[in-house]
Amino acid sequence: MATVGLPHSSTCEQAILDTWHANAVPWLHAVRGQTIASRVLVTDRAILETVCARHPRTAIDLGCGEGWLVRALASRHIDALGVDAVDALVQAAKRAGPGRFLTLDYAAVAAGALTERADAIVCNFSLLGDTSVNGLLRAIPGLLTAGGALIVQTLHPLTAMGSTYRDGWREGSWSGCGDGFGSAAPWYFRTIGGWLASLSGAGLQLTQLLEPLHPHDGGPVSMILVARVA
Amino acid sequence: MATVGLPHSSTCEQAILDTWHANAVPWLHAVRGQTIASRVLVTDRAILETVCARHPRTAIDLGCGEGWLVRALASRHIDALGVDAVDALVQAAKRAGPGRFLTLDYAAVAAGALTERADAIVCNFSLLGDTSVNGLLRAIPGLLTAGGALIVQTLHPLTAMGSTYRDGWREGSWSGCGDGFGSAAPWYFRTIGGWLASLSGAGLQLTQLLEPLHPHDGGPVSMILVARVA
Repeated sequence: MATVGLPHSSTCEQAILDTWHANAVPWLHAVRGQTIASRVLVTDRAILETVCARHPRTAIDLGCGEGWLVRALASRHIDALGVDAVDALVQAAKRAGPGRFLTLDYAAVAAGALTERADAIVCNFSLLGDTSVNGLLRAIPGLLTAGGALIVQTLHPLTAMGSTYRDGWREGSWSGCGDGFGSAAPWYFRTIGGWLASLSGAGLQLTQLLEPLHPHDGGPVSMILVARVA
Repeated sequence: MATVGLPHSSTCEQAILDTWHANAVPWLHAVRGQTIASRVLVTDRAILETVCARHPRTAIDLGCGEGWLVRALASRHIDALGVDAVDALVQAAKRAGPGRFLTLDYAAVAAGALTERADAIVCNFSLLGDTSVNGLLRAIPGLLTAGGALIVQTLHPLTAMGSTYRDGWREGSWSGCGDGFGSAAPWYFRTIGGWLASLSGAGLQLTQLLEPLHPHDGGPVSMILVARVA
């Protein structure tokens, strides 16, 4: 969780992409092998229930990875599109079941590469950068149908803050994800106020904030932000 | 911070009022003697700056206590009304300087006893109950001018949560407030999601969330919620 000695912000942004490209295979195994306890216990169901509670007809999962959430939505008769920068994950997603998938990075989405709108746009633990995320968020209003919502699940700032409660780059870790991972990328920590400022800067307005709790220790495992066009 | 053994919710609500009546004098000394370090270092200025940044013409301070914030706003040419349930504090406020003051409890405000509207309605560490607070919040839309805002400063859930991150009654304490206090009342802990649900249930929509930090340890000292009519 050290914040000193990290490279420049643009280097950190690139490292996030490089790291996901390099670790696609262990990630696939981690998700499909149900290795990550917090996902199995809490956060998979939390994001699925939050999306489904809105009864969307269409959904876009940005940073979909190997596609489990798109498959879960598609099996509930939601027309779901998964988008990820890592083609190896997108190809694995296409082979695994229903749902549509596209290989696009966030810069491309921010630049307008997606030409369809959806009732729900979901980012499930997939907003890891600073300016790359702000750029992506600014594209969201143009991707939502009237009345649609952005639904973001992220680490809860309370449990993820480490020693400093301040927006900034932090050293990453694959701890808890199982075996086979190489080096981890930095990630950009956002305070609660930081998340709200980023949403606001993108023309989005928070409408709901959920804090799924750990069934054993009662602490908040994640935070789910639901936002609409302001 | 124990949550077991607390009396019934309505008893807790009454205990809050009883305790403030019983501790008006030491509270007056604590505030006027600048005894509470977090107020002096961080939160007094934070609430004042947040209110003033909106350039309100009129303000109502609900749970104004001995009136320091009303005086600070009045000295900045804001027509400020302070409201508190404890007449001893209201009388002390009236004697101390400019601003208008009324003795009313939250049940009375919730029932429509206030007949004026304001550009800013402020609750500075004054929302301590459960249903009493929800009742008060439901009255806020009727007290705001068009474009007006509710501004709530409260303990930051991250630092105030104790061992359980779950909405509920907690045992209180006057720790850090100086000498002369009797027993403390329970208070109702709200998670961040709990605060947002209470605002939403009152027809209010969060527009800004600020997290003033401690200048020494960098941790969040308080949380300021800014909301408008939804």
